[in-house]
Amino acid sequence: MSDKVPATVEWAQTDAGPAVRMIDQTRLPGELVMLDCTEVEQVAQAIERLSVRGAPAIGCAAALGMALAAHLSEAETMDGLLRDLAAARERLAATRPTAVNLFWALEQMDQAAREATGADVEGLKRALLQRAQDVVEDDLQRCHAIGRNALELIERGANILTHCNAGALATAGYGTALGVIRAAHEAGRGIHVWADETRPLLQGARLTAWELVTEGIPCTLICDDMAGYVMSQGRVDCVVVGSDRIAANGDVANKIGTYTVAVLAARHNVPFYVAAPLSTVDYELASGAQIPIEERDHDEVRLLAYRAAEPVCPPEVAVYNPAFDVTPNELVAAIVTEKGVARPPFGEALAAMADG
Amino acid sequence: MSDKVPATVEWAQTDAGPAVRMIDQTRLPGELVMLDCTEVEQVAQAIERLSVRGAPAIGCAAALGMALAAHLSEAETMDGLLRDLAAARERLAATRPTAVNLFWALEQMDQAAREATGADVEGLKRALLQRAQDVVEDDLQRCHAIGRNALELIERGANILTHCNAGALATAGYGTALGVIRAAHEAGRGIHVWADETRPLLQGARLTAWELVTEGIPCTLICDDMAGYVMSQGRVDCVVVGSDRIAANGDVANKIGTYTVAVLAARHNVPFYVAAPLSTVDYELASGAQIPIEERDHDEVRLLAYRAAEPVCPPEVAVYNPAFDVTPNELVAAIVTEKGVARPPFGEALAAMADG
Repeated sequence: MSDKVPATVEWAQTDAGPAVRMIDQTRLPGELVMLDCTEVEQVAQAIERLSVRGAPAIGCAAALGMALAAHLSEAETMDGLLRDLAAARERLAATRPTAVNLFWALEQMDQAAREATGADVEGLKRALLQRAQDVVEDDLQRCHAIGRNALELIERGANILTHCNAGALATAGYGTALGVIRAAHEAGRGIHVWADETRPLLQGARLTAWELVTEGIPCTLICDDMAGYVMSQGRVDCVVVGSDRIAANGDVANKIGTYTVAVLAARHNVPFYVAAPLSTVDYELASGAQIPIEERDHDEVRLLAYRAAEPVCPPEVAVYNPAFDVTPNELVAAIVTEKGVARPPFGEALAAMADG
Repeated sequence: MSDKVPATVEWAQTDAGPAVRMIDQTRLPGELVMLDCTEVEQVAQAIERLSVRGAPAIGCAAALGMALAAHLSEAETMDGLLRDLAAARERLAATRPTAVNLFWALEQMDQAAREATGADVEGLKRALLQRAQDVVEDDLQRCHAIGRNALELIERGANILTHCNAGALATAGYGTALGVIRAAHEAGRGIHVWADETRPLLQGARLTAWELVTEGIPCTLICDDMAGYVMSQGRVDCVVVGSDRIAANGDVANKIGTYTVAVLAARHNVPFYVAAPLSTVDYELASGAQIPIEERDHDEVRLLAYRAAEPVCPPEVAVYNPAFDVTPNELVAAIVTEKGVARPPFGEALAAMADG
């Protein structure tokens, strides 16, 4: 993000010792408040209550959480340390089910531990911190590469619609979908962004609008149910969204409402682009039908993102609150990763990227 | 509505004289508060700030507002009374542009005045009050007829999705879309309703959920961006919505977001039904492209339906807040009126209903 804004999530030294430091995104856009997690449980709860959210940023937080677990371990033997790490891994893996980057990042940390076979306890701790910081730094570099790679898709003066926040706040920095938007803006393309507010938790209104306003990228906020009307007026040239998990065939899980946007885009012949690092691709899943969809607290719907003092609906009404949906690959025009632009058929294109 | 709930809008006697009495819908579901308007300006402002809303209910309020103008007129001559009525008509007509029922109801009152040519001042006042009360009573009867006529469309155990509130609160009572739902429920069809919350003003969460909970009709509240996902799971059997204006060709203006629901329904082969009295059909408009779309206060989006103390977005972000959209007739399976079920091609079917 810009120089004015701190890192989304990073390793920090505090008076209480090392911490996983993050922007508390539940407080935006009203306040920019940092949250220092000095216990693994604090990191896990920060992920659960969405103080840090967005698939790549969750992965970064989990990796740093494992480094924190290593640092805090009082074990004097490798076996003891590995037991402490396993407990931390179990807790962090149980936070949120849909984003695969979480599990990818934990696997990166497992791999670092396996590779440090010759190390002693302190050596393993150092190796894990180094790997966690590499995960964060790599994510930032991948976002910049995604932005560069997507430039061929964005025309001068394009009106780009996005849903939720796949921005600097959803990654180590720069963003995936908003990375594409930043790159196009920096390249002087003269773009304008339609930001869906993204109920129930309003990541579009709270976070995407905040990022774009902070950087001076032209942006108009709409309610989610307005996207179809805006498209019907010919005022949207393409859609760019992030993803929490992409199946091997190119089916895309992302924030609830993404599928609705994709259906609308198809009707209006508006290309629908997905921007995500390859860590988002779950090559073990044949299709999106197998992606677990988290259902969250009904009060997110009832209490207007927890901000209203009283429910906006009759308190006794039933609520359904799925946090994600799956967009079938037939509605996706391209998936942009750090390695390039994948086009249909995605099964082959994504497999080639994994090998390349 | 049920016996527990007062009339949406009616003529009432108060200590301050006659009044247009209405449920103040901005206070629901938290409080059931009645609003007595003893001045025409109060009626106009109640329409503008949505204390009374819903196309047929706006028409009823406007008709009663004209009766109130007649009652309050101090003119001693017919010419003077007619001048006072013209001023009231102009004010009421300027409240909201999209719903045609408003203009239809004002035309009913004009007609009543024209028909009372032989009357004196007091006779014309009586005639106007009688006609306004007829408009209200007729609307209630039309809603019941719409409900009966739609029964052929609703299968046993149907999951019905609706957007916004086309309920008892949007009419003189019983409702259009919710009239269909009430009739199916009363007929023992064992239906379940998906209620879109309907941002920005949450008429689904506040009003539709309140009506259905009050009457014990099974209902689940979702955010607008969840409708696509729910349909993709095969959990919606039909959509029923109301309308603010229907063009002669069957294009349907309704609450913003309706078009999005219609596009989603088409993709999932879910029939999309519109329930509205014939007073909603604007036979002078060839297509929906000519329907004026009201744009409303941006704070409706920024402040979460005016309920949040502070904006949920950066205060400086641009906002777009169209209140309605237009669904092209090709996406509509049937339009149910008090005269029966119109099927495509709607131009002929709606014309036949006008003549029949």
